[in-house]
Amino acid sequence: MIGRLNHVAIAVPDLTVASDMYRDTLGAQVSPPQREPDHGVTVVFVELPNTKIELLEPLDETSPIAAFLERNPAGGIHHICYEVEDIYAARDQLKAKGARVLGTGEPKIGAHGKPILFLHPKDFNGTLVELEQV
Amino acid sequence: MIGRLNHVAIAVPDLTVASDMYRDTLGAQVSPPQREPDHGVTVVFVELPNTKIELLEPLDETSPIAAFLERNPAGGIHHICYEVEDIYAARDQLKAKGARVLGTGEPKIGAHGKPILFLHPKDFNGTLVELEQV
Repeated sequence: MIGRLNHVAIAVPDLTVASDMYRDTLGAQVSPPQREPDHGVTVVFVELPNTKIELLEPLDETSPIAAFLERNPAGGIHHICYEVEDIYAARDQLKAKGARVLGTGEPKIGAHGKPILFLHPKDFNGTLVELEQV
Repeated sequence: MIGRLNHVAIAVPDLTVASDMYRDTLGAQVSPPQREPDHGVTVVFVELPNTKIELLEPLDETSPIAAFLERNPAGGIHHICYEVEDIYAARDQLKAKGARVLGTGEPKIGAHGKPILFLHPKDFNGTLVELEQV
């Protein structure tokens, strides 16, 4: 079912510092910061040859990643995102296997403009998993 | 400097459960478990079209990931690994930028038989970063 690793998302307390570090210290190609008000974050894309890293800074204290940064003030890996061909088929297959889908269970439109779902970390080795239909 | 994302490593308390979950629930291709006594882990490779996930179970309580699992009993993302062309050039560039290399600072031979280094998570947004020369 799962296809490519679409991205690894890293929550960071300071996007400028994190972006400079990926560009200047690790020598990677980084995008300009993009505000995503619908998702409560500003994001910088680190473009690697085979996938991307997304550096996420909360827009305010209501951001979905604000609580994560309170627990992990230095930042940390927040989730990984796998691509699927059909988000509804994926959801139904996962639910049939007993895996928990977060929220209402209905796909939402994610930051890339495509349908996404998040899966419960307790069902996936403590890892928050996003699925994105591509 | 950094190239491809070589892998994402996830520490898991039970490799059989985690491996079955990736194969049966997420529908991914998983390898048989491989014991890596030199690195204190048994590993299962989840092969994705563009990269891989490594599921790591400690061989015993002296394993480098045993303490991580004590803090995160359900498991969690342990590190991410970026490829570099020249591990010594990468190390020297990182040290010149003030980033800390773990251990002696000399590359070791990693689980794939190639030279590796680990970088201090405090310098990289709370993320343990491995560099592997390919």
